[in-house]
Amino acid sequence: MTNPFFKNNGPFKISDIFKILNITVPQILDDHKIVDIKDLFNSNKNEITFFHSKKYKDAANDTKASFCITTEDLKNLLPKNCQPLLVTNVLVSTSKITAKFYPSSINDNFDNTVVSIVETKLKDKVKFGKNILIGSNVSIGSNCSIGHNTLIEQNVSIGNNCSIGSNVIIRNTIINDNVNILDNCVIGKHGFGFFPINNKNLRYPHIGMVVIEDNCEIGCGSTIDRGSMSNTVIGKNTFLDNQIHIAHNVKIGENSIITAQVGIAGSSILGNNVVIGGQAGISGHLKIGNNVQIGGGSGVVKDIPDNSKVMGYPAKGFRKFIRDGRHK
Amino acid sequence: MTNPFFKNNGPFKISDIFKILNITVPQILDDHKIVDIKDLFNSNKNEITFFHSKKYKDAANDTKASFCITTEDLKNLLPKNCQPLLVTNVLVSTSKITAKFYPSSINDNFDNTVVSIVETKLKDKVKFGKNILIGSNVSIGSNCSIGHNTLIEQNVSIGNNCSIGSNVIIRNTIINDNVNILDNCVIGKHGFGFFPINNKNLRYPHIGMVVIEDNCEIGCGSTIDRGSMSNTVIGKNTFLDNQIHIAHNVKIGENSIITAQVGIAGSSILGNNVVIGGQAGISGHLKIGNNVQIGGGSGVVKDIPDNSKVMGYPAKGFRKFIRDGRHK
Amino acid sequence: MTNPFFKNNGPFKISDIFKILNITVPQILDDHKIVDIKDLFNSNKNEITFFHSKKYKDAANDTKASFCITTEDLKNLLPKNCQPLLVTNVLVSTSKITAKFYPSSINDNFDNTVVSIVETKLKDKVKFGKNILIGSNVSIGSNCSIGHNTLIEQNVSIGNNCSIGSNVIIRNTIINDNVNILDNCVIGKHGFGFFPINNKNLRYPHIGMVVIEDNCEIGCGSTIDRGSMSNTVIGKNTFLDNQIHIAHNVKIGENSIITAQVGIAGSSILGNNVVIGGQAGISGHLKIGNNVQIGGGSGVVKDIPDNSKVMGYPAKGFRKFIRDGRHK
Repeated sequence: MTNPFFKNNGPFKISDIFKILNITVPQILDDHKIVDIKDLFNSNKNEITFFHSKKYKDAANDTKASFCITTEDLKNLLPKNCQPLLVTNVLVSTSKITAKFYPSSINDNFDNTVVSIVETKLKDKVKFGKNILIGSNVSIGSNCSIGHNTLIEQNVSIGNNCSIGSNVIIRNTIINDNVNILDNCVIGKHGFGFFPINNKNLRYPHIGMVVIEDNCEIGCGSTIDRGSMSNTVIGKNTFLDNQIHIAHNVKIGENSIITAQVGIAGSSILGNNVVIGGQAGISGHLKIGNNVQIGGGSGVVKDIPDNSKVMGYPAKGFRKFIRDGRHK
Repeated sequence: MTNPFFKNNGPFKISDIFKILNITVPQILDDHKIVDIKDLFNSNKNEITFFHSKKYKDAANDTKASFCITTEDLKNLLPKNCQPLLVTNVLVSTSKITAKFYPSSINDNFDNTVVSIVETKLKDKVKFGKNILIGSNVSIGSNCSIGHNTLIEQNVSIGNNCSIGSNVIIRNTIINDNVNILDNCVIGKHGFGFFPINNKNLRYPHIGMVVIEDNCEIGCGSTIDRGSMSNTVIGKNTFLDNQIHIAHNVKIGENSIITAQVGIAGSSILGNNVVIGGQAGISGHLKIGNNVQIGGGSGVVKDIPDNSKVMGYPAKGFRKFIRDGRHK
Repeated sequence: MTNPFFKNNGPFKISDIFKILNITVPQILDDHKIVDIKDLFNSNKNEITFFHSKKYKDAANDTKASFCITTEDLKNLLPKNCQPLLVTNVLVSTSKITAKFYPSSINDNFDNTVVSIVETKLKDKVKFGKNILIGSNVSIGSNCSIGHNTLIEQNVSIGNNCSIGSNVIIRNTIINDNVNILDNCVIGKHGFGFFPINNKNLRYPHIGMVVIEDNCEIGCGSTIDRGSMSNTVIGKNTFLDNQIHIAHNVKIGENSIITAQVGIAGSSILGNNVVIGGQAGISGHLKIGNNVQIGGGSGVVKDIPDNSKVMGYPAKGFRKFIRDGRHK
């Protein structure tokens, strides 16, 4: 992903990077220019990446980045083309460098670029209600409607035949065709990502977007946070009920049904044809397979293979859940 | 219930109905006029109904409808006065016919009939805040107040002595006397009802209303969806806390107390004097008796008889829950 | 706490209090003036307090109040300086007297004192969006921003360097420095407090505030209710994720992390450095120690000592939770 929304303030010289990382003895002599920061998978030559856990050793081995923020004990897992920059806390350091490249991605103050829709070209194209505000870098396709008091803040692309409800707030989001966003949703705000530090937590930047693919519906009062380094994605023809929370970097597959008040924690990846009952919760960094059914109220704390039906907390196989309940 | 809100585009000839159902060989020869579509319980002569599950065989046996969308294996359970129309998928067919009678009940695009309250007669009668929009077919009783930025969209009747908060959105709803609706609620939107079809789900119409009886309170950020074929009802003197979700067709009795973040799935029916602790969830199509107490965080997955106290997931008797917890 | 926000309509003569309490035979002969009503801990001479449960016998023994609403069987636990006023239902009687002193604390109708921010002095000081309304008795420090459509209703004090999002509603709240309130929050409304009475519940007054200390963040769509007799407090550098509900009188310590969709019921007190996973619920009137970790989806129904790690419903020690899950 090349982020289309956040302005990259780079390139920066590697010596500038050293300063931010408090590296006083230069570990690299040439003063290279660094053009961007990305994750291990997506970074390229003259870019910087980060590597903080052995879990990602394969990606580290394959990375095309020229530089990598990492630690002493991980540095040998990087390929020769990638020079390690050694730090104590990889994620904090990465956060600082990301903030250097993308300073506007940290704070989510209100968008002061907005103007009334009637002062924009969209007024001739979109069916719209009262008191609608549109930020900079917003595009909307044909045959769309936008409800009352809705804010389309900066960096939003909406496809054709979409219906956006009232009191909705959207920013940093790509919405494809035939999507319905119901009232009171907040989509594209930064996620709940920060480094806990006594007295003053350190927020890390969120340079990802939200992507909502064709034919989706997002229920009233739902919140979908944008990604930190990657995107938050709702796959094609997936329907979300009311009051759902989708955290940063979550990827939901196609043709899925997610019932009211479900919460999905950060970076979990769900397959296609997943059905989730009301109020279920899915922990962060999990992989949920295709055709998985998760009972209402369940708490999923580990990966779920394809074609499974789980229930309970911690979620277990449906038959086991019924049997355990009966034995007691 | 005769729906007071959605415009019935009928009557239609039975031959028109055949076309929509793809019935090429007419199963009935006379070209009757059909005036409405209702459920088995409420339909009358010259109306069409539907029958899709043996669970409803008693109602089917008693129905007064002249026609019934059903299947080969259920048709014999209908009375003589009711002619079966045989289809493969009863609910999908019913959805199509309902959409024919009530085309405006499918989409919940923003209400473009609204005008500022100061341009309506209500301005002399209601105590109101700033930026309030009122749709067509809205009536409000005496001694009511409406908060800032609130949208009373079309088809809303509000009684006397009601207080509607700020940022509230209401449509297709009857509110009786002495009701408080707190800030940020969304009431009367269509429910989470559709037929899952790969690549393009089929929404079914919601021609029901929300009915909120006397002396109720609805907490901040709650969502109450309107019914599909029947109404969603909140009984007299029932109080809902914040962030509650009430799905379509749910009926809650009188004098009940529902604490924050509870979710009640579609079509469940609750008795009077029910107390539900925070974050509890109730699955769909259940019957919860009178005087039932449901512990906070419980997951109710089966019917609960009168005068029970349940807790846990799946919810079981309170004493059993405590005992099971101790044994472990 | 002396409440800075609600107007105290007192003092009242003790004979007026008797009338409200339906005490026909005066239990005290001199017609003292009563200046305020407070809880056992905070009340002083010439003030009235209430005592309804033996749980508070130590506080009762130490109270400085001159009068105390209580029952026959508790009256002997009060010190000599405090004269008991005997009633049948202490809380209902307390509610009535509180309503006498603070009549404006019962209803949360919309604030009709608001004006557009551009008509206030704040317009030169605050960075603000469109359509912002400001009530009476609002102060805002330097370097703050307020998003679109936000209502700062009466009785709000905001410190320096705060960012208030869009569609936010705040009243009766003190916000310190460097606080971020994200979009769609409702902060400072009365709690879910009333006496259940068939056909017509009796709301009790909420004369407390919400206090949000330095460096906090409150996620999108969260609701924080103000206290009834004391305050609801969010401690320094505590971060709340989206869709969280904090009930009246809850006190959360410093440096805590509360993940999405958590609910904390009324009057619970949490220590510092508490981490709560998504969708966990905490029952009312509990004490959660310092450095406690509560797993996502847990239901906490009893006090948790310092330095514990709990999970499940009912929440138990983390190792026990894993072990119990494995055995099944």
